[in-house]
Amino acid sequence: MNEKLSTPSNITIERKLNHVEICLHGNVSFEGTTTGLERYAIEHQAVPEINYADINLSATLLGRTIGAPLMISSMTGGYHEAATLNRQFAQAAEHFRIPLGVGSMRQALENNEHRESFAVVRKAAPSVPVFANIGAPEVAAGLESSQIETMLDLIQADGLIVHLNAAQELFQPEGNTNFHGFLDQLASLTAKTPVPVIAKEVGSGISAEAARLLIDAGVKVIDVAGAGGTSWQKVEEVRYIKRFGNENRFSPEALNELLNWGIPTATCLEEIGRLKKNHPQYQPIEIIASGGIQSGIDVAKTILLGASVAASAGRLLKALHEGKLLQTIEMWLNDLKAVMFLTGSLSLEQLQKKRMTLKHLPT
Amino acid sequence: MNEKLSTPSNITIERKLNHVEICLHGNVSFEGTTTGLERYAIEHQAVPEINYADINLSATLLGRTIGAPLMISSMTGGYHEAATLNRQFAQAAEHFRIPLGVGSMRQALENNEHRESFAVVRKAAPSVPVFANIGAPEVAAGLESSQIETMLDLIQADGLIVHLNAAQELFQPEGNTNFHGFLDQLASLTAKTPVPVIAKEVGSGISAEAARLLIDAGVKVIDVAGAGGTSWQKVEEVRYIKRFGNENRFSPEALNELLNWGIPTATCLEEIGRLKKNHPQYQPIEIIASGGIQSGIDVAKTILLGASVAASAGRLLKALHEGKLLQTIEMWLNDLKAVMFLTGSLSLEQLQKKRMTLKHLPT
Amino acid sequence: MNEKLSTPSNITIERKLNHVEICLHGNVSFEGTTTGLERYAIEHQAVPEINYADINLSATLLGRTIGAPLMISSMTGGYHEAATLNRQFAQAAEHFRIPLGVGSMRQALENNEHRESFAVVRKAAPSVPVFANIGAPEVAAGLESSQIETMLDLIQADGLIVHLNAAQELFQPEGNTNFHGFLDQLASLTAKTPVPVIAKEVGSGISAEAARLLIDAGVKVIDVAGAGGTSWQKVEEVRYIKRFGNENRFSPEALNELLNWGIPTATCLEEIGRLKKNHPQYQPIEIIASGGIQSGIDVAKTILLGASVAASAGRLLKALHEGKLLQTIEMWLNDLKAVMFLTGSLSLEQLQKKRMTLKHLPT
Amino acid sequence: MNEKLSTPSNITIERKLNHVEICLHGNVSFEGTTTGLERYAIEHQAVPEINYADINLSATLLGRTIGAPLMISSMTGGYHEAATLNRQFAQAAEHFRIPLGVGSMRQALENNEHRESFAVVRKAAPSVPVFANIGAPEVAAGLESSQIETMLDLIQADGLIVHLNAAQELFQPEGNTNFHGFLDQLASLTAKTPVPVIAKEVGSGISAEAARLLIDAGVKVIDVAGAGGTSWQKVEEVRYIKRFGNENRFSPEALNELLNWGIPTATCLEEIGRLKKNHPQYQPIEIIASGGIQSGIDVAKTILLGASVAASAGRLLKALHEGKLLQTIEMWLNDLKAVMFLTGSLSLEQLQKKRMTLKHLPT
Ligand SMILES: Cc1cc2nc3c(=O)[nH]c(=O)nc-3n(C[C@H](O)[C@H](O)[C@H](O)COP(=O)(O)O)c2cc1C
Ligand SMILES: Cc1cc2nc3c(=O)[nH]c(=O)nc-3n(C[C@H](O)[C@H](O)[C@H](O)COP(=O)(O)O)c2cc1C
Ligand SMILES: Cc1cc2nc3c(=O)[nH]c(=O)nc-3n(C[C@H](O)[C@H](O)[C@H](O)COP(=O)(O)O)c2cc1C
Ligand SMILES: Cc1cc2nc3c(=O)[nH]c(=O)nc-3n(C[C@H](O)[C@H](O)[C@H](O)COP(=O)(O)O)c2cc1C
Repeated sequence: MNEKLSTPSNITIERKLNHVEICLHGNVSFEGTTTGLERYAIEHQAVPEINYADINLSATLLGRTIGAPLMISSMTGGYHEAATLNRQFAQAAEHFRIPLGVGSMRQALENNEHRESFAVVRKAAPSVPVFANIGAPEVAAGLESSQIETMLDLIQADGLIVHLNAAQELFQPEGNTNFHGFLDQLASLTAKTPVPVIAKEVGSGISAEAARLLIDAGVKVIDVAGAGGTSWQKVEEVRYIKRFGNENRFSPEALNELLNWGIPTATCLEEIGRLKKNHPQYQPIEIIASGGIQSGIDVAKTILLGASVAASAGRLLKALHEGKLLQTIEMWLNDLKAVMFLTGSLSLEQLQKKRMTLKHLPT
Repeated sequence: MNEKLSTPSNITIERKLNHVEICLHGNVSFEGTTTGLERYAIEHQAVPEINYADINLSATLLGRTIGAPLMISSMTGGYHEAATLNRQFAQAAEHFRIPLGVGSMRQALENNEHRESFAVVRKAAPSVPVFANIGAPEVAAGLESSQIETMLDLIQADGLIVHLNAAQELFQPEGNTNFHGFLDQLASLTAKTPVPVIAKEVGSGISAEAARLLIDAGVKVIDVAGAGGTSWQKVEEVRYIKRFGNENRFSPEALNELLNWGIPTATCLEEIGRLKKNHPQYQPIEIIASGGIQSGIDVAKTILLGASVAASAGRLLKALHEGKLLQTIEMWLNDLKAVMFLTGSLSLEQLQKKRMTLKHLPT
Repeated sequence: MNEKLSTPSNITIERKLNHVEICLHGNVSFEGTTTGLERYAIEHQAVPEINYADINLSATLLGRTIGAPLMISSMTGGYHEAATLNRQFAQAAEHFRIPLGVGSMRQALENNEHRESFAVVRKAAPSVPVFANIGAPEVAAGLESSQIETMLDLIQADGLIVHLNAAQELFQPEGNTNFHGFLDQLASLTAKTPVPVIAKEVGSGISAEAARLLIDAGVKVIDVAGAGGTSWQKVEEVRYIKRFGNENRFSPEALNELLNWGIPTATCLEEIGRLKKNHPQYQPIEIIASGGIQSGIDVAKTILLGASVAASAGRLLKALHEGKLLQTIEMWLNDLKAVMFLTGSLSLEQLQKKRMTLKHLPT
Repeated sequence: MNEKLSTPSNITIERKLNHVEICLHGNVSFEGTTTGLERYAIEHQAVPEINYADINLSATLLGRTIGAPLMISSMTGGYHEAATLNRQFAQAAEHFRIPLGVGSMRQALENNEHRESFAVVRKAAPSVPVFANIGAPEVAAGLESSQIETMLDLIQADGLIVHLNAAQELFQPEGNTNFHGFLDQLASLTAKTPVPVIAKEVGSGISAEAARLLIDAGVKVIDVAGAGGTSWQKVEEVRYIKRFGNENRFSPEALNELLNWGIPTATCLEEIGRLKKNHPQYQPIEIIASGGIQSGIDVAKTILLGASVAASAGRLLKALHEGKLLQTIEMWLNDLKAVMFLTGSLSLEQLQKKRMTLKHLPT
């Protein structure tokens, strides 16, 4: 299924361009599967005992203090127009003092034509954590130290995100479905990378078992990127159909299940939360909650489920496209402050200890 | 969000007027969130062993015998037209020998223009328990003994209700979101107030944890005022939009969740019931069940969940507006008597011991 | 609510006439509340090991062998046209060798005008168990031995059914809602009645607690008559509205709940089953399952839930009216035989031991 | 119900012809009852650690290695046109190296007119396991060794499937509902049959209890053939109505329940899985999962529930009719490979150990 095309670097460029277009204009959200966050209700505190004006949103990630527990997820780079998008994301990140990731830097390893599309990020966001990004197949194939250096240097990265995208590769016309030997290569990568390595899915979620394997290989942060938001199977299915027509790779019933394949974001957080609770050695690991985040209430719920920060891609891309990126983040922070006020939380540490129940179920 | 306006006393007046109008004509009921009372089925007793004619609805609250376990919740006062409403509520309360509360008396502390709108209550309801009312932000800011005296004297109050309305203040254009130091001030208030102090939400509910804090500060009665009836976030959102237009304070997804924010009335009662059961020191505390009460069957269910009386605001205001206040209360008492007959309960003490199950769930 | 009318005997006659009409043509089925039998799935036995032709439907009730575990519930009598209905029911009962009850014999105690309408039953059904019927209010008021004799003699009754109909009396325009002292009178009735006494609801169900009280008063059989079929509150509400118009006795929300008030038939059976299991002294008590029975599969499920026989009123009345009484019973027995075949049960004793699970729930 | 017709052999032929027609063009799928497989979600493994290209679908059944864990269920034979269908099924089976069963061989025992319609199977599928097929009523009536030999020889069978079809016989106009003595005859059959005997339902499922009886009688493989796919009650009801019109054998409510009667496929697998786990002596028994299989994801789920292979009839017959048999099986294998890739399973042994959760339920 994956050997149909070789992947010269112009394919990489075109793909990244396509992705943004399809995410903006295609119907690529999970259907049937939700994040599961909507099942939770945060308990109201009638006696908040705080002054709204004193609420402090600041968070920490990898030892760095940031303005709020929110992150702009890895999205783009590696082609000319990406520079504009990345600059705007970076400006927003700098404005709110929140971290951001760039899209896969595979293109920057293939040649050095569009490096500016990455470099712009650090220029526009000099003071916040910025993360480099590379895919699991590239890691599995083996990355040389010089390649790692190239990526990190380009944006003076504070960390390197390795994205795990098996389902995407499976649906991608030119996908690389060889994940053999990935963990060994990952261990060697984390050993030789001077900054922390973050493992991240792209929408199918990370189970407790997968988290454990990743952490044991040296990963410091898990970004669950669970099901409920952007489905990368759907994104690639759009590309596949455009190229090959309706080829019927899968049976109709299975196709629907595969397009919506993944562990809901809340389930990932619950499971990894239990893992950390039951195994003290995993407690220092930080969790990024992503996949389908669509409001500051979602952010709050993920904090209550143990995340350090929440991250969003699809929604923020749409907001940027509509010229509302700053306004959207502003509203999300307002949402979050509302929850903090109504639970009597001055800080995220306090918020984290509040109570959440499953809606409509007898307690 | 809250410092936009100073709050001169004409604002207080106008607000109270607005509230009645919006509650009567706006769409301000919770959506998605219900009281949870509808999930319960009271068990039929095929052998009632009583004569319907012997059923006795009388209840007690704070040591006073009242005609039925029903109360007209705190609503209005402090502007000219409020006198008419309050007189009619008071006449109904006197007619059925049930307690009632007046609306927030903040206006009466600001000046003495509309004191008659409060005083009328005691004149029309000389024999039943009448409760004064003041907001948590006023308490947090510190109330002098003379202010307390003013409020109590105006209606010869049998108790003082402190309403907790964090979510309302958050949405209120001129809201005061400083709840810092509230509990200390509450403790000092309960110490110096010659009548019992009642803590009451306004529709977002009181959790067991909040109840505990309130009782420890000297409160004698908890009025849960849970989610499922009038949403005060919605009431204030109407006012906010009227004043500032669609300002997009919150993201659309979060807005919906915040407008319907709160602990369902039944959940509050279940939780506080457990608190009382597990901690003997909290057993003397009386519970008022309110938030979304819409029939005498709801009243009966709250009794079974441990409440001394149920209270209603929104529904009774509408009934008054339609000229059906007496008739509505009469029907509610008939509803309640029907339940008492069909469970074989001559008195509320007997009713309280009957069995309730969750509907549609295997027992 | 109930003292509005005296109840001369012509009222009794007219009421019984009305009941049949309303049950046939009105919308008097429970809504929202179901029998709960539909939640159960009987486990298929792929290896039935029996010959369908050998299946034996015979059952026993009060020591009498009957043709099938089905009974025609108490319905009518006491006015001229009732004779026709009762004759047809009796002929069907005789044909299938199943028991039947007559309607309340209160009229026959008031005068002796329409005795034939009862007596016809025994004439047409000489060989099967036939049960007399009287209401709880009559029992509570005290029945003389001669009155009991009159009822039993009229149909050479094999048992006396006392129907418990508190909800019906509550809604009945001329209802008698005095159930005071009922249990004492019941105990005295069972002591002096020469045949077994059966306690029966009329659609609101008998809880384990009520069953216990009834058995302790000497009752030998419990007919649960639970919620899910005919709602006698609805039947009487039709009559009430016809007489008094929309008087608004109850609030709209409560009315809906009261019209559908009752314990689902399956819940009654589950609860009483547990009672019998946990208290050996209650094990000899036989259970009749009624309220909403609408097929032979329902009959089978009630057997699996511990009933000796199932009984039906509303459905069989409609079948009679459409000229399909024999055919309907025939189909129900076929339904039952199908279940017995597919569970490998030659007899009801074998059927009773088969397994039933809740549908759609993980086992 | 079953003695209406004698069953001369032309009836047997006509019936098999009808079956194919009705399955292709009638509405004979279960409604209301599903396989239950749709309630499961297979857990995504973000770190698959394998190369998609290395995935091996090979399975084993009765000690034979086969190309994939899929089987073409017993369907047809015994009339002229069946030869064409069976040849195509056999060619597909041979192509994918998967097992297949032929339809009931009762006709071949009645006379030897259409033996070619069976024999063609072995000719077209020389290298894969092929299974003979006979019904439980024939077994119950007693099969002579020579008859067994005839069936096995005709297709050089690797096993003999005995189908249990009580519900089908019940609905079949000419059905044989005598299952008396079946188990004893089965024990004698398994003793004298030189190949393993497989017990199979046809859509109503095999419970753990039934499985135990069958295994104790010498059966080596259980094909659960549970509810959720083709309903054989519906197939026969179509034939019944065609012959006798709407005869109203069953009440309308029961008819619906009987037409959809059966244990969901997933429930059978869960139950028998528990049986095997709790009783080591049953562990060597192999399970075939069938009844409503409609994709390779269903196949994967049944593997996770303990099946050795999954089997399909109705769906594959439709695919054949549309000229898409090979393509359909190809897609199913692709579905299965997708699941294996996304769970990191190189082999079925690895797949079997992966985790599955119930959808939408908190874990
Ligand atoms: C346009 C676009 C491009 C993306 N490219 C990358 C990428 O290069 N690397 C990566 O790790 N994730 C990439 N993602 C995935 C996101 O980081 C994120 O994990 C996923 O979309 C789920 O989050 P969401 O539901 O908030 O969109 C991309 C997402 C979008 C919308
Ligand atoms: C018009 C109106 C005015 C109200 N004003 C007050 C108030 O001044 N003080 C207070 O404690 N609650 C006030 N409430 C809240 C009610 O007492 C009650 O807690 C809330 O509306 C939930 O009950 P419900 O669902 O029965 O309306 C007011 C309610 C209404 C409808
Ligand atoms: C027309 C009619 C008249 C009835 N009259 C009596 C009666 O006199 N005595 C009695 O015990 N139950 C009476 N019932 C109640 C039934 O016996 C039965 O308990 C009730 O209708 C619930 O069963 P169903 O759902 O099968 O109708 C009557 C029912 C009907 C339909
Ligand atoms: C046309 C057709 C004919 C069938 N004939 C037989 C048969 O002769 N013997 C048998 O054991 N099962 C027979 N079956 C039943 C299937 O083997 C299978 O158990 C049942 O249809 C459920 O599987 P499905 O939902 O995949 O169709 C037949 C099925 C079909 C569709």
